[in-house]
Formats: sequence, C-alpha cells, structure tokens
Amino acid sequence: MLRPEHCLRTPPAIAPAAVTSLPALSCLRPRAVRLPREAPLPRGKTSSTVRASALPMREAAAARMPSLPHREVALALAEEVYARLGAQLLPSAVPADVAEFVNGAGTAVGTLDVRRGAPASSIDFVLQSSLHCKVPNGAIDITSILIFLDASTDAPHFLMEFIQGSPASMVVILDLLPRKDLALHPEYIEKYYQNTQLDKQREKIEELPQTRPYRSTSLFVRSACSPTAVSVSIDCGQGGESILEEIVYGHLASVAKGVLQIWLDSCAGNTSEMTEVEREAMVKRDQIVRSKSIEVDLTANLPRMFGSDVSSRVIAEIRKAFGVQEA
Amino acid sequence: MLRPEHCLRTPPAIAPAAVTSLPALSCLRPRAVRLPREAPLPRGKTSSTVRASALPMREAAAARMPSLPHREVALALAEEVYARLGAQLLPSAVPADVAEFVNGAGTAVGTLDVRRGAPASSIDFVLQSSLHCKVPNGAIDITSILIFLDASTDAPHFLMEFIQGSPASMVVILDLLPRKDLALHPEYIEKYYQNTQLDKQREKIEELPQTRPYRSTSLFVRSACSPTAVSVSIDCGQGGESILEEIVYGHLASVAKGVLQIWLDSCAGNTSEMTEVEREAMVKRDQIVRSKSIEVDLTANLPRMFGSDVSSRVIAEIRKAFGVQEA
Repeated sequence: MLRPEHCLRTPPAIAPAAVTSLPALSCLRPRAVRLPREAPLPRGKTSSTVRASALPMREAAAARMPSLPHREVALALAEEVYARLGAQLLPSAVPADVAEFVNGAGTAVGTLDVRRGAPASSIDFVLQSSLHCKVPNGAIDITSILIFLDASTDAPHFLMEFIQGSPASMVVILDLLPRKDLALHPEYIEKYYQNTQLDKQREKIEELPQTRPYRSTSLFVRSACSPTAVSVSIDCGQGGESILEEIVYGHLASVAKGVLQIWLDSCAGNTSEMTEVEREAMVKRDQIVRSKSIEVDLTANLPRMFGSDVSSRVIAEIRKAFGVQEA
Repeated sequence: MLRPEHCLRTPPAIAPAAVTSLPALSCLRPRAVRLPREAPLPRGKTSSTVRASALPMREAAAARMPSLPHREVALALAEEVYARLGAQLLPSAVPADVAEFVNGAGTAVGTLDVRRGAPASSIDFVLQSSLHCKVPNGAIDITSILIFLDASTDAPHFLMEFIQGSPASMVVILDLLPRKDLALHPEYIEKYYQNTQLDKQREKIEELPQTRPYRSTSLFVRSACSPTAVSVSIDCGQGGESILEEIVYGHLASVAKGVLQIWLDSCAGNTSEMTEVEREAMVKRDQIVRSKSIEVDLTANLPRMFGSDVSSRVIAEIRKAFGVQEA
C-alpha cells in the first residue's frame, strides 16, 4: 500500500518503521466519524473477545474511529467513487472481524472494506481502510483508498493515503500507479500523465510553504510511483492545527479530488488493446508491485500494532483482494 | 542528457526550455579554466569562420570557458575517472570543430569530448561537456560527465550534471541511471541502490537548507532516473556567491565523489549474466532512454544557442556516441 514508514513523530510504542495503513470503511459513515476524537478506547479486550462478539465490536470500533478533517475529505472522495463506479462493484465480502477490528489492549482500531469489480468491469477491487492507533503522546490516524484495475486494461491504478501523526502534521500520498516501465513506454507517459496534466495537481500542493517532499524509506515504493506522484509531508508547526485543517479542506481536498477526477475520466472503464505477451508482462509486474507493497507495508508492521492474530486475518484479506499468495 | 530545462533565472535570450548541457573537455585543462570569468568573447565570428580555422578557434574557445568552483569539482571527478578507467578507453575521436565550438555571435562556447571503451571493456563511452553561454544579465554554465556502459552488463550508467544559472545558484543532477524496470526487478534495486547505500549521498546534499528538490519539466526524464537520484537546486540568495562556493567545494564535491566512487566500485568493470531475451530487452530500453534524452535536451534546445550549423555537428557527434539514429 506504498505507505510512508517514518513520517510520524515517533512515539516509543510505534517505531518509525511500524506505521501502516489499514482500511477505511469508517469514512463512509458520517455518524461514526463525527464522534469526539479522544473517546476512551475499551481496555482489556482481547482479539478473541472481538471475534466472539463481532457485531457489537464492529459498532464499538467504528464509534471510536475519530472524526478528522482528512477523513471527511476521504469520505467525499469515496462517495464520488461509489457514485461513478458503484454499478460495476460487487457487495463487500470482507468478514465482520476484518471489516472492523481492535488490538488486544484496545488502543488501536481499524476498518477494512474491499469491493471486487463485477465480472464485466475492468475494476479489480476498491479497497478502503482506516486506522486509529493511540500512542503515548497522541495518536496516529491513517486513511486510504486504493482502486486497482484488472488485466483488461493497462491504465494506472488509483492510490490515496493520508497519514496523520500529530494534530498539525500529516503525510499525503496520491498517485496514479503506472503499470508499465515508463522509460520503455514514453507513449504511456504521454497518455496517462502528460495529456491529463496530472503534474499540475502535484504542483498545487507543493506550492504551499508547509509542504516538504516525502520520500519513503523503501526504494521499491519510490520506484513503483509515477513521476507525478504527490508525496509530501505537511507540517504546520506547534499549534498549527487550524492551519492544517484549512489546508486539508482547501488545497488537499481540491488536489485529491482533481487526481481522482483524472483517474475516473482517463483510466476507469478503459480497456486496452495488448498482445498476450504484453498482457503477461503487465500482469507479472502488477503481481510484484502488489506482493512487494504488502510485504513492505503490512507484514513488517501490522503485527506490532494489532498482534499476530488480528493482523494475520487482516493481511489474509488484503492478500485476497490483491490476488497474491503468502510469500 | 537528462537535463533540467527551467532551472535558471530566465534571461530574455534563453527561454526556460532552452538550456542544454554541452560537453566538458575544458574541465581537464586547469590552465584554461583558471582564466578570468568575464573575459570578452569574440564578436562577429560566424560558424563557418570557426570551421575554416579550427585550431586557433579551439584554443580561443577553450580560453573563454571560465573557471568556476563547479568546473574544478568536475575536473577532479574526471581525473578520478581517467585514473581508474583510462586503460579501458580509446583516444578521443571527436572532430576539432566539435571538440570546441562557438556560436556565430561569439556569445556561447562549448566543448565536447567522447572516449569510446576499448573492445574488451564494458564501457560504451565517457562523455564530457562544458558550455558557457552569455546572456543579458550574466551567463549560464553547464558541465557534464556521462559514463555509459555497453550490453555486456546491466549495471547502471553514471550521470553528472552541474547547471549554474547565476553566481549564487545552480542545479545538480547526479545519478546511477537504471537499465531495468525497477518495479519489476526488486533485486536490481537491492544490488545497485540499496546495498551501495547510494541514498545516503542524496540525503547529505538535501540536508542543506539552501537545497530544494529540482524536478525536470520532462516526465520522461524523471522516469528515467533512479529513486536515489540527486536532483536539487541550490540557491544561496542575492550575494550568496561565497556560500555557494563553500557548498560546491564542500558538500557537493563530497557527494559527487561519493556517487562516482559507488559507480566505480559497483558498476564499472562488471559483466552480467543475462539471457539473450533479457539482454535484448535491456538494449531496447537503453536505446529509448538515449534517443529520448537527446530529443528532450539537445534537438529542442541546442540550435537556439549555437545556431543550426554548429548544433547539427555537435548533435551528430553525440548521436554517434549514444549509438542512436536521427529521429
């Protein structure tokens, strides 16, 4: 899921490499996300308790996913996605104890929703995730939307991740993930990146004095992104909560919407003429990107936050969506 | 040659997209580069005059290539290259009127040197270039070293470009150019980029408060670079000439030497086991990178600076080195 690994003010409990995003079902629930941010988390619950009483815990977990400006922006994006693509998607088939989950100590809650594309659609899946994890000096909140396409098209996938490590700072990753070697395919750059003027969106957010380039510590993750990827940290300094809020509702909302619109207009619903050899090469590349991103992100980090039981269930579901086997 | 196109304070005579680097033979001539920076250029010479009296003009052109801290750093790098690779290189075969050239008005001087690898070597060529172009408010100075490998190895090429648009600011590009699709080849990332700790060099220069990321306006150029590429502008502000000088002799010299050392130790002299199919794919990718970079850089820009006669000669020689035909 191509996530920043060291973007947050490091709390003792979560090492710099331990941050991972989990899925954002909550952002489709306006009721839930409007609850107070610091609502107490349940203590002493174990993951087996969660499994034994899935429905009540799902509500409890959702209730404790705090409202944040970045989640409201993600909610609006998800609504746009479902308005445009809803008819092409199957209902969610994620089990209840993965749709929403907590860690044993009740200090971390996550939600995951995956909707596969219908057979006639070029959508492989839409994955949404949200994660809220208390740490000694605050919390980490991560919200993601991934829309992956299948092998009927070579159009880029859509990737959005917001990672908020303090009230006044966050990391933003927004990209149309290429599915071909760009140096070998200048025409692909032209079609999906040049002609769509995608780079203007990156420029819009980078012109803010509060943004700095964000570079993943994983060279693979950097290599998988496009040359127009938005990958920035936004830091509004101590007491800058309201400035960040303004940026999130203003610049960030506009840029994220802009990138999604380009993807919806230029990539969704496409099919591409390819030879079988080209298609096989693309599928092979896709598989490596999918496997490697799960490995970099999730298998390395999720167990530290949710324990091995919960994280195994969640990772298994994400592997299923990504169509990759355990390494 | 993967050059920045809009890195300079735009003078009226040279549009933002018009900057191009030309080869740096001069940086091997300490005598020449120590001449005063603002030595007057010949006026009223035409390119045909230059061709008619090649030898005197070569000397004249070399004499007018100004000394600059960045050229001294490039000189030291070139010396290191020749100390390590000299025995593997053939003598320069660049014609006199391309080795050094001026424009009709005498406001721009350039040098180009290309040395091919000997038959048993994995070096394809070492290309050095220097360009000095007067503009109404000052001058543009560009110095480049490119070392490209042949198809006996898949090791990255070496690329260094310094582009100085004012006394207190410049753009730096330093990279080991990958020859494979990195998202498809995580083992290639590991071998040449991760294990060599190349990214530490990028971090060293980006930690300076005077640096900002530099992004080429060409998405292709961005795509051809590695995820560890140094691509920064260094701006020391008005009156910051001595600060820039300090950075160039300090951080920049150290980082450029570090990147070259990694390339010399990990890439030069390698041969790689590949199947014929893999080799063909790599050669095809290389050809596109070479053709496209000449197209982006030179054919679009060089004629504006040197006129069509001179630039045609120079581009033809670079095409020959790169092994690519006219588009």
